[in-house]
Amino acid sequence: MFEFMTIRELYEMIQSQNHVELDSIEYVQLQGWVRTNRCNGKLGFIEFNDGTYFRNAQLVYMSELKNFDEVSHYRSGCALTVTGKFIQTPDGKQPFEIQLTESILEGDCDEDYPLQKKRHSFEYLREIAHLRPRANTYYALFRVRSVLSMAIHEFFQDQGFIYVHTPLITGNDGEGAGEMFKISTTSKEHSEEFFGKEAYMTVTGQLHVEAFAMAYRDVYTFGPAFRAEYSNTPVHASEFWMIEPEIAFADLNDNMNLIEDMIKYCIDYLLENAPEEMKFFNDMIDHEVNNRLNMLLNSEFKRMTYTEAIDILLKSGVKFENKVEWGMDLNREHERYICEQVVHGPVFLTDYPKDIKAFYMRLNDDGKTVAACDLLVPEVGELVGGSQREERYDVLKKRMDEMGMAQENLQWYMDLRRFGGCKHAGFGLGFDRFLMYLTGVSNIRDTEPFPRTPRNLNF
Amino acid sequence: MFEFMTIRELYEMIQSQNHVELDSIEYVQLQGWVRTNRCNGKLGFIEFNDGTYFRNAQLVYMSELKNFDEVSHYRSGCALTVTGKFIQTPDGKQPFEIQLTESILEGDCDEDYPLQKKRHSFEYLREIAHLRPRANTYYALFRVRSVLSMAIHEFFQDQGFIYVHTPLITGNDGEGAGEMFKISTTSKEHSEEFFGKEAYMTVTGQLHVEAFAMAYRDVYTFGPAFRAEYSNTPVHASEFWMIEPEIAFADLNDNMNLIEDMIKYCIDYLLENAPEEMKFFNDMIDHEVNNRLNMLLNSEFKRMTYTEAIDILLKSGVKFENKVEWGMDLNREHERYICEQVVHGPVFLTDYPKDIKAFYMRLNDDGKTVAACDLLVPEVGELVGGSQREERYDVLKKRMDEMGMAQENLQWYMDLRRFGGCKHAGFGLGFDRFLMYLTGVSNIRDTEPFPRTPRNLNF
Repeated sequence: MFEFMTIRELYEMIQSQNHVELDSIEYVQLQGWVRTNRCNGKLGFIEFNDGTYFRNAQLVYMSELKNFDEVSHYRSGCALTVTGKFIQTPDGKQPFEIQLTESILEGDCDEDYPLQKKRHSFEYLREIAHLRPRANTYYALFRVRSVLSMAIHEFFQDQGFIYVHTPLITGNDGEGAGEMFKISTTSKEHSEEFFGKEAYMTVTGQLHVEAFAMAYRDVYTFGPAFRAEYSNTPVHASEFWMIEPEIAFADLNDNMNLIEDMIKYCIDYLLENAPEEMKFFNDMIDHEVNNRLNMLLNSEFKRMTYTEAIDILLKSGVKFENKVEWGMDLNREHERYICEQVVHGPVFLTDYPKDIKAFYMRLNDDGKTVAACDLLVPEVGELVGGSQREERYDVLKKRMDEMGMAQENLQWYMDLRRFGGCKHAGFGLGFDRFLMYLTGVSNIRDTEPFPRTPRNLNF
Repeated sequence: MFEFMTIRELYEMIQSQNHVELDSIEYVQLQGWVRTNRCNGKLGFIEFNDGTYFRNAQLVYMSELKNFDEVSHYRSGCALTVTGKFIQTPDGKQPFEIQLTESILEGDCDEDYPLQKKRHSFEYLREIAHLRPRANTYYALFRVRSVLSMAIHEFFQDQGFIYVHTPLITGNDGEGAGEMFKISTTSKEHSEEFFGKEAYMTVTGQLHVEAFAMAYRDVYTFGPAFRAEYSNTPVHASEFWMIEPEIAFADLNDNMNLIEDMIKYCIDYLLENAPEEMKFFNDMIDHEVNNRLNMLLNSEFKRMTYTEAIDILLKSGVKFENKVEWGMDLNREHERYICEQVVHGPVFLTDYPKDIKAFYMRLNDDGKTVAACDLLVPEVGELVGGSQREERYDVLKKRMDEMGMAQENLQWYMDLRRFGGCKHAGFGLGFDRFLMYLTGVSNIRDTEPFPRTPRNLNF
């Protein structure tokens, strides 16, 4: 008799050193895919993966096997159901192997399988997005993407935050963050505007989630957003996922505490729940991964005003490519200098000039700056952007007037200030970029299952 | 000295009967919103909610309070920070009250606040979607929406499923489930097609998630989908959330087991994590809620083929509005008859005629039916639709040819069958409709934070 097992179960059992349980396993059945297969005519080895664990199981087959010849010709990619004897090999490269007693071909793999044993470039693998989750880097990455998603949900839900599905179709074309996609219907019958007005794909859920913070206190969104920017860079995608929490009765300091807590929670969670994958990233993709995660975990995130940062940059004596002056938007070189040369760790810059920030950020008493906070991290620069929101109706309206914003579509948002509005704050974290930062993967096209970028809509 | 507390913490402490802890609380501080305020000139009562719990806290204030007059004039909706003495009132309507020693107005509420104490119609409340989360029904509903979301994630993640963010922008206009929205860029500079081809908003993540099932075995999506149908009904929205799991090395029976397990898990989770809200729905919205949930929890979901169902309908002697014949798509009246009059509970109908089902469903050996399963439930009819997928390349291609489907955009999907494809199955559950069913709320416009429907894109 055999037991159906997953490769994860076998590895976890071995790691737990549960000898009673381990010794009770004689024959196991596995289902999965051939990664590699080699055979010397009498003895063969299959590296086998079933999708449940980062590491493979080694299948061993000998000429006694009924369909030895067939098995020896299995190509990479084949789907199998196998049964075999479970043998612990504590001195081997792998802690166990399976000596096959039966192998059934569930799905053959054609000869032109584009994912051969050799190392492929990321560029090549992007061309086969439907198959690349089977390649080591992506196999690790998309599991980490799933684990990190769950970390986000658990972090917020454990603290009583309400998850809000803010709408993706919006009538507001002025949410203030870049070019938008326009949507229309293909139906001839209803060729007038489907919604009775122009419709766009949202760039942020923030405005909508603020309404929910005024009912539930602590809320968050976690969903897709869109930008129709024609930017072919490693950090821009037309579709990406965003995390946008909003907290009521809270100011900029509460907001920064929340950001710091969330980041540390996520890192702990990843190290706990995807240790094999995180080790892979450190070994194979970016040797700084472990150092970076430890640095973040062990740092107290510093706080510094924008004005202090400008002073430091001016006094630094460094010749930056972009000239430093108060009122400018900081470039990546400035942000990295502050993090890497001054603070030597993560730092929140706060209180930016109002003219370079969004209309909804709370005006400080100086009349010149707003209660914004950007988290800067070494190597990357800005990772998170947040702010305390303007809760004073008159101040908000004046700001929108100054910026020439159409207000009729946003009257509901402004009215939140007239009906029991209170101080509140929130932030936005681009999930895909966060994933890049934590894994060391350097192109956003590699972090998304089927990335959408300009002139790229295959699959 | 006082302690900052939430209303949830106070209720949970009282429910846990932790007298040592309870007796140690003397003064507390709360932050939240006035639901109602009444005062007889000497003594006043505020029903107060802070967003953390379904029930309110009662605040009591007396003429000794410094700003008694101001407090007595607080309108519904005002945001406050209050401090007061915590008094247990085990014989009262509420288990505790707070005798105010201080009250600070954080945010005033204008006189034209549209959410007054009286009972408002759902139609009216839909017109103030930015404020309605503060009204009891929506306040309960959107918390339950959040709790149910987390139930879904925990159910799948606990079993090792990988969460996949399938793309929302797609180049496939033939995913086979209704009218699609078309997207374009508003940029003049890039007025040619942004993606180099026509782009649409997806109607399903299934095709994409199948690629991931061939790497990870068990996967799921949970995200938005879109339909450009001009249907003004209580169950159609232009934007909605879908759950789409996909399991490899699995057939239709495994799929039905997964559906049944998921539904029961979600119900248990809701009753455990949102008991106050679920009681509210049963008391105030639909007296069948408790019965329905218990019925689902305690039923073994039956299974019956489509052909058997047609026989039963033909022999029933009932005069249906829509004539019954083999090959027809069942109408709601037929589905309800089978559930309510024949099975008296939930039932999977399986093996539907291929001509009324999607191209990707596995052809049965009879050549006429496919391995589909629709879960029918009393009162509603179809709640979930799933199938085993066609894993045989030639059979799939023949089917697509017969249906006249353009294949060039779906070659990658077909190729999954050439490269280690194995038997697999999955299903789709409309999250918003599931939420309607579990709470008894009868219009999808009431289950979504900011619903999008034809000619309706306010907010």
